[in-house]
Amino acid sequence: MDMQKMGADARQASYQLAMLNTAQKNQALEAIAVQLEQNVSAILAANGKDIEAGRANGLSDALLDRLLLDEGRLAGIIADLRHVIALPDPVGEVIDGCALENGLRLSRRRVPLGVVGTIYEARPNVTIDVAGLCLKTGNAVIMRGGKETIHSNLVLIEQIQAGLENAGLPATAIQYIRDPDRRYVAELLKLDQYVDMIIPRGGAGLHQLCKEQSTIPVITGGIGICHMFVDESAHLDKAVALVENAKVQRPSVCNALDTVLVHQAVAQQFLPKLAQTLAQSKVIGHAEGEAKTWLEQGGMSVEALKAGDFDQEWVSLNLNAKIVADLDEAIAHIRQHTSQHSEAILTQSLHNAERFTHEVDAAAVYVNASTRFTDGGQFGLGAEVAVSTQKLHARGPMGLEALTTYKWIGIGDDLIRA
Amino acid sequence: MDMQKMGADARQASYQLAMLNTAQKNQALEAIAVQLEQNVSAILAANGKDIEAGRANGLSDALLDRLLLDEGRLAGIIADLRHVIALPDPVGEVIDGCALENGLRLSRRRVPLGVVGTIYEARPNVTIDVAGLCLKTGNAVIMRGGKETIHSNLVLIEQIQAGLENAGLPATAIQYIRDPDRRYVAELLKLDQYVDMIIPRGGAGLHQLCKEQSTIPVITGGIGICHMFVDESAHLDKAVALVENAKVQRPSVCNALDTVLVHQAVAQQFLPKLAQTLAQSKVIGHAEGEAKTWLEQGGMSVEALKAGDFDQEWVSLNLNAKIVADLDEAIAHIRQHTSQHSEAILTQSLHNAERFTHEVDAAAVYVNASTRFTDGGQFGLGAEVAVSTQKLHARGPMGLEALTTYKWIGIGDDLIRA
Repeated sequence: MDMQKMGADARQASYQLAMLNTAQKNQALEAIAVQLEQNVSAILAANGKDIEAGRANGLSDALLDRLLLDEGRLAGIIADLRHVIALPDPVGEVIDGCALENGLRLSRRRVPLGVVGTIYEARPNVTIDVAGLCLKTGNAVIMRGGKETIHSNLVLIEQIQAGLENAGLPATAIQYIRDPDRRYVAELLKLDQYVDMIIPRGGAGLHQLCKEQSTIPVITGGIGICHMFVDESAHLDKAVALVENAKVQRPSVCNALDTVLVHQAVAQQFLPKLAQTLAQSKVIGHAEGEAKTWLEQGGMSVEALKAGDFDQEWVSLNLNAKIVADLDEAIAHIRQHTSQHSEAILTQSLHNAERFTHEVDAAAVYVNASTRFTDGGQFGLGAEVAVSTQKLHARGPMGLEALTTYKWIGIGDDLIRA
Repeated sequence: MDMQKMGADARQASYQLAMLNTAQKNQALEAIAVQLEQNVSAILAANGKDIEAGRANGLSDALLDRLLLDEGRLAGIIADLRHVIALPDPVGEVIDGCALENGLRLSRRRVPLGVVGTIYEARPNVTIDVAGLCLKTGNAVIMRGGKETIHSNLVLIEQIQAGLENAGLPATAIQYIRDPDRRYVAELLKLDQYVDMIIPRGGAGLHQLCKEQSTIPVITGGIGICHMFVDESAHLDKAVALVENAKVQRPSVCNALDTVLVHQAVAQQFLPKLAQTLAQSKVIGHAEGEAKTWLEQGGMSVEALKAGDFDQEWVSLNLNAKIVADLDEAIAHIRQHTSQHSEAILTQSLHNAERFTHEVDAAAVYVNASTRFTDGGQFGLGAEVAVSTQKLHARGPMGLEALTTYKWIGIGDDLIRA
């Protein structure tokens, strides 16, 4: 693997991509979709090898299910790619503009970032997803997927590159690091001469690695330690439904609830009610003192709080519970433990709602709504590149716009600076 | 120096700053201005020590001049601080918003970044400048200035913190790393738990260090290898004036011209003309072949091109010159050597102007205007935090808005995700 060459090729391809109009980019996306449709059996055969190797290596059933492609799933992935064709193209938008006092006509025009690097784990659909979003926004991309999906990804990338070539574009617009040796991840993270942005899609360890090793700007995120504060004025029945939704609807994702904080004035009334509902979904509580007692009264199984529980992203049917004296204590707790993803208050007090949205620092802050809404699809962004929990460039769900930057364009009539 | 404590204190202060309204922040800025005015003699005395130490250490006259404060310069710095009071506050702006199909009322509200870290060199005015811009936008800041200005900076920070306290704000909102040991720079760059953004203000070496060592997002920039392409259709007399302006008006800054590219069809006519003008300002040419010959015909002193000249930010009265066959070669040259700061084409061809603005990838791209316009003041941003040459978050001159991020605020009426 000659990473310098991959970088230089990607940069060169990015110049060509930046000059395509939307129709040309959509044609290339369609060419890839057709190519995938025409090679379903080759893709599924390669995926079969990954599944076989995964079984031999003792991967869990849950992980094997994430790896698995079948005709239905592949059709879904191709449909998602065609959905990207239908999305509006952010490139070319004039963000703002003006004429300066000196006569310079200045505007900011939205342009592709250039070259994106992405490092991801497990699911082969990410390969198509990222390729499609980058192509739509005129970016070249260098991808590195998990070794568990290497056979699937190599066939997918072959079809993607064939689609690019059918559309008259260079195969180097979408490249894949074929050698699973981790040293190439390290090399990718240092290619700042060629790569403009790194998007890790995976667990906390991957994000930390990128943060520490990359000389390229990294969009970190995806880790959600999410809280809901049930204030004393909350509608308690509705609060039960909201906590249940945030915890149970899809516990494996980053916007699922991790900790419920309950105002002391309503804790004795609320916690047993909540426990009755959560027990039906087999949620395990993590609490101490009265919180533990009252949850157990409602029939929930509750473990004693361990050190670190409040800093845990559960991604499973586990939930911390804590009784707090007031809004101040709730905010202080959240500030200490949040990953700045999604936080919610349930209240009928306008004053407390205002304070919460103002004082809690997170990508998404909710009043009387589930943390589960933090999602590009839900937010109407059309696509989700990632969910950022850092504060630069993009925060929260990132749509196509987050794969662009802008340039300032100044037009003068032979203008010099006085 | 306990950097962990500095970081935690800054984070704590940032919560308080984020809740201030604009009037309160302006009061604190005014309190700092008053404090500086009342302590002019102490500030100048401390600066005298820096100048004395600088002389003893053999600093150049140019560098000593950058360090020097006198009553006039200090009055200017204080006036600049009051100018920041007059600027509009970007915090609180609702960027956009909508009601989603499910009823969630969603908006994006502009908020401070939180904690900014800045590492800078030489000039003591940066201390006041950065403190003012961060305070105006509700950010806490940790500053680390060059050791040459340590006496000045320590007195300035003392007055800044006294001003904060007079306004009822914590001194920890604006902190300074007093120990010049470079290990504290390294520690600052790893404080990702507390610091949201690093802004280096200095040379290429400092930017490289930050890029390599920081686990916090860094805004790199400030290095400008700037080109002007004189197309065959350019007005040659006006082109001479534009190249002169870009090179000579202020050669020490990042938007000054480094390389002029000339279309072969007009080179023989243009280069001697240009040389006549530039020779008067004692500009040294760097060229080879006919370019060298024709510049020398105009009376300019021209050195033979050396390896690396085209990748050199001159920041002085030196200028590379190269004859190119056409626009394609000009664009290819720029792509190879640009630092993506400011690039210009001089042409009367609309087609070539369109191609240049489209195909050249830089923070600012000009048609028939000087590269010297790339500047927060010129662009009407009111203030300039830095000039970014990377593509995430902000590109080109950064105003107050670049010191903010946004949060998504979702308001529901007990809304769960279906």
